[in-house]
Amino acid sequence: MRGAMSVTELFKSENTADEIELQFDASGRLKHLLTLRGLDRSLITELLDRSEKFLSPMGQPVVRSTALQGRTVANLFFEPSTRTRASFDLAARRMGADVLNLDVKTSARKKGESILDTLYTLQAMQVDIFVIRDASAGVPAYIARLVGPHASILNAGESDVSHPTQGLLDLLTIRRHKGDFGELVVAIVGDIAHSRVARSAAEGLKTMGVGELRLISPEALAPDPDAFPSARIMHNLDDGIRGADVVMALRIQRERIGSLDGIPGIDEYYKNFGVSSARMQNAAPDAIVMHPGPMNRGIEIESSLADSSQSVITEQVTNGVAVRMALLATVAKTLGSQ
Amino acid sequence: MRGAMSVTELFKSENTADEIELQFDASGRLKHLLTLRGLDRSLITELLDRSEKFLSPMGQPVVRSTALQGRTVANLFFEPSTRTRASFDLAARRMGADVLNLDVKTSARKKGESILDTLYTLQAMQVDIFVIRDASAGVPAYIARLVGPHASILNAGESDVSHPTQGLLDLLTIRRHKGDFGELVVAIVGDIAHSRVARSAAEGLKTMGVGELRLISPEALAPDPDAFPSARIMHNLDDGIRGADVVMALRIQRERIGSLDGIPGIDEYYKNFGVSSARMQNAAPDAIVMHPGPMNRGIEIESSLADSSQSVITEQVTNGVAVRMALLATVAKTLGSQ
Amino acid sequence: MRGAMSVTELFKSENTADEIELQFDASGRLKHLLTLRGLDRSLITELLDRSEKFLSPMGQPVVRSTALQGRTVANLFFEPSTRTRASFDLAARRMGADVLNLDVKTSARKKGESILDTLYTLQAMQVDIFVIRDASAGVPAYIARLVGPHASILNAGESDVSHPTQGLLDLLTIRRHKGDFGELVVAIVGDIAHSRVARSAAEGLKTMGVGELRLISPEALAPDPDAFPSARIMHNLDDGIRGADVVMALRIQRERIGSLDGIPGIDEYYKNFGVSSARMQNAAPDAIVMHPGPMNRGIEIESSLADSSQSVITEQVTNGVAVRMALLATVAKTLGSQ
Repeated sequence: MRGAMSVTELFKSENTADEIELQFDASGRLKHLLTLRGLDRSLITELLDRSEKFLSPMGQPVVRSTALQGRTVANLFFEPSTRTRASFDLAARRMGADVLNLDVKTSARKKGESILDTLYTLQAMQVDIFVIRDASAGVPAYIARLVGPHASILNAGESDVSHPTQGLLDLLTIRRHKGDFGELVVAIVGDIAHSRVARSAAEGLKTMGVGELRLISPEALAPDPDAFPSARIMHNLDDGIRGADVVMALRIQRERIGSLDGIPGIDEYYKNFGVSSARMQNAAPDAIVMHPGPMNRGIEIESSLADSSQSVITEQVTNGVAVRMALLATVAKTLGSQ
Repeated sequence: MRGAMSVTELFKSENTADEIELQFDASGRLKHLLTLRGLDRSLITELLDRSEKFLSPMGQPVVRSTALQGRTVANLFFEPSTRTRASFDLAARRMGADVLNLDVKTSARKKGESILDTLYTLQAMQVDIFVIRDASAGVPAYIARLVGPHASILNAGESDVSHPTQGLLDLLTIRRHKGDFGELVVAIVGDIAHSRVARSAAEGLKTMGVGELRLISPEALAPDPDAFPSARIMHNLDDGIRGADVVMALRIQRERIGSLDGIPGIDEYYKNFGVSSARMQNAAPDAIVMHPGPMNRGIEIESSLADSSQSVITEQVTNGVAVRMALLATVAKTLGSQ
Repeated sequence: MRGAMSVTELFKSENTADEIELQFDASGRLKHLLTLRGLDRSLITELLDRSEKFLSPMGQPVVRSTALQGRTVANLFFEPSTRTRASFDLAARRMGADVLNLDVKTSARKKGESILDTLYTLQAMQVDIFVIRDASAGVPAYIARLVGPHASILNAGESDVSHPTQGLLDLLTIRRHKGDFGELVVAIVGDIAHSRVARSAAEGLKTMGVGELRLISPEALAPDPDAFPSARIMHNLDDGIRGADVVMALRIQRERIGSLDGIPGIDEYYKNFGVSSARMQNAAPDAIVMHPGPMNRGIEIESSLADSSQSVITEQVTNGVAVRMALLATVAKTLGSQ
C-alpha cells in the first residue's frame, strides 16, 4: 500500500505514460485527475455533460447533491490560492462532502517528508479525496503513487505543468458558446512558457479536435514547441487574433516584465501583448474573451474589455464550480466501486 | 451589472443619501446593510423582534433554522477579526447556510483591483451574501454598487465610520433590559472620535428616540459635533455618568495613549475615563454597563465591574449572534423575491 | 460563574487533586478531559469500548452520528497543529456538530487576558465544547475553572504536561493488538523529559494495569522519576527493547540535538536511540511499533520500519478520530443532563 518509493526519489519520475495510466482503475474508470493527457474525447464529453447539470441560473438556489455524503475532501494547498480553493471547497460542500482545508507551509528541504507524513495521516483519518496544489512538478503523481486504493487525488494546479480542472472549465465555457470544436480557431496569448493553464487547455482542445490552436507570446516567453506539437507558435498579436473565435489572455507575473529580453516594461507589454477591444476588431465578430484570473487589468487585458459583453471570464468561474462538482461525483463513484 | 465605477474612482463617493437608498430594493425591502442611517424605527423594531426569536437560554440547544439552506455566505475580512467573524460564521451556519471564510491580504495600492476581482469571482461562484470588514471607509458601499442584483452586502465593520450590526446588538441589549428608549439616558465613554461602535449606536439610538445621549471623551478624542447632531459632548466622566441608565465603555487603542494631549499614560486615562464600580455609584441604581469587546481591562473599564452583575457584556455577544441571524433571514428573503 | 480567579493568578495553581476532580460533574460524569489522572479503569474501558463503535474498515463510508447535532465545538489552538486539529475537526463534524476553528495568536504578556476574553466571548456565542491546545502548563484547567456550567473543556495538548486524547488513542491501539494490558511490556523511547505523549501514555497504562513500563532516553532527557513512580527509567536502547511487546518512539525536537550533553549530533542520536528493524530483533516476535507523529524519519525511527507491517502508526491516527468521537459523545451527554 505504501513505501514503494522512498522520499529521496521524490518528484524524480518522468514516466509520463505511467502518470496517464495511474489515473484509471483496473476497470478503466477515472480515479485520479493528474493531467488531461490520457482522457479521451468521450470521457471529457461525459465530464462536460455532467457539469452542465450542476449549472443553475444566477440568483436561483444552487444545484446540490448528496453524492458525496459521508465522504471527506481535503484541500491540501502547498501553494497559496484563494479562488481555486474556494471553488473546490464550494463544489465539495454542494455535493454533500465534509471539507478539510489545510494550508501546509513547509521548507523545500523537508517537503517530501512533510507531504508523505501529511498524506498518510489524512488517509488514516479516512479522507477520501485529496485536492492538491503544489509549486513543484510531479507532486500530484507522486502522491497518487503512494496513496491507498481507497483514495483519489485531484490536481488543482501543478507548477508550470498542469491545471486539468482549469482545462475542463475552459472547454466547458468554449463549448457552451461555440458548440463543436472542429471549426474553431483558439488563440492563447501571453506567458505561454510558464503557463499550466495554457498547457492543460491545449491538451484538452487537441483531444476535442480543435480546428486551430495559436499560442502567441513574446519570444522570451515562447513555449518549447515539442510541448505543443499541433499548435502554431506566433509572436505577433494582430496576426494571432485575426479570425479567432476564442481569445484567451494569460496572467503574467509582474516580476517577469522588465527582466526579460523584449519586455522592457508594462506599457511595452500591454502595447504588444495586451488583449484590448481595438485588437479584438480583428477576431471573428462573435469571438469570446477568456482569462483564468486573477487578472492584471491594463497589463495582459484591457479592463473595460474584461467587463464587456464579449468577456466570459465570470462564466469561467461559474463553470469551474460545476466542473469540479462533476469531477468529484465521478471519482466518488469510482471509489465506491473499489 | 458592473463596471459602472472604475477602479480609480474607488472609495471616493461621499454621496451618503445614495448609500442609504442603496440598501433597499425597488420594493423598499432591506437588501444590503451598510449603515443604520435610513433604517426607520419600524424596520429596526422588526429586526429586533425577529432577533428575539433566535435567543435561547444558555445550556439549551441553540435555535436553528433552514431559512438559508442552499445559500452561500462569504466572510470577506480585509481587516483581521476573531469575534465578529466567529459571530457571523455561527449565525450563518445556524441558519443553514454554507459559509466560506476568506482572509484577504492585499497591499493598499492593489486594493481596489483585488476587491473587484475577489467580488466578481465569488459572485460567479454563486455566493449570495457577502459579509465585509474593511479598514477603509466606503468599501461596503463601493461593493454594494458593483454587486449583481442577486447578492447582498453586510457591513461587518468599516473604518471609523460604521458597524451597523454592532449598533443593532447594542439596541437589542438595551431594549431587553430597559424596554422603551424614550426615557433613557445613555452615556458612551472613551475614544468617540475613532469609534464606529459609537457612531452606529448613536444612529440607532436616535432613530429609536433615546431620551438623552451623552458622549464623554478626552478633548483630544472628542468627535466632530456635526457627526452627532443631537448628542451632548462632554469631557467629565462623573458628570457624564450621573443618572445614566446605560454606560457603554469603548475600547481604546493603546497606541493612542501617551501620544495625545491630555492622555499622558494608562494610569491617567483610567483615572479620568475608566468606567469603574466607584464611578457607577453616580449612575441610575439599575444602570447597566456595556462594552463592544475586546476589553482592555484596567484601562477603559475596571476588570471586576466587567464581570459584575451590572455588566451585560457577554449578553451583547449572545445578542450579536441573534441579530446577525435575523439580518441574514431578512436579506435572504429579499434576495428570494428578486 | 466567572471571575473567581484573577488574571494575575493565571496558570499558578498546582493543586492537581483539584484538577482531577474538576473533570467530573456533581453526579460523577465526565465533563472535562484535562488529564488521564483520575479516570479509573472502568471509565477508560468504557471510552475505549465506545471508540470501537466509531471505527470502520478503510474505504467504507465512515461511521457518522447525530449525537452532537445542534452543538458547537470550538477548536482553540494557541499553539499550531495540523494533525490534532484535523482529527478533532473531523471527529466533531462526523458527530454532527458545528465546528469553529480559531488560531489565536497572542503575546505572552497578554495571554491571560486574551484567553479570558476569547473564552467568555465564545461561551456567550453558545459554544458547548472547547478543544484547547496551549504551550503553557495549566491553561486547560485554568479555563475549566472559569467556564460556565454548560460548557466542556477538552485538552488537546498542554505543554510538556499532558495530552490525554493521545493517551487514549495509544491505549486503544495497544488493546486492539494485544488485548489485556496485564502481561505487557511497553517501552517508550526518546525525549521522555519533554514529552506530554509519554506522560499521558504512562498515566493511562498504569491505570489499565500494564505489566511493565520502560522509559528509555539519553541521560540529558531522562524524566523526573517522581513523575513516573512505577516506571523503569533506562538509558540503553537494546536493554529497553528486549522482550518488549510495544515500542513507542517519541518525536525529538531537532533543536535539542547538538545542544545537550551526550547528544552531539543526529547520527549519534539515531545510533543510540533510533528505533530500527535491527533493534526490533530483540523485542517480542509480534511486537508493534508506535509513534505519535509527525515523525523525524531517520532520527528517532528508521523510515522503512515506520512503513513496515510491524508499524501501527497510521492505525494510531485512525484510532485518534474514533477516540475523539467517543469523547465528544460522552461529554455532550454530560452537558445534556446538567
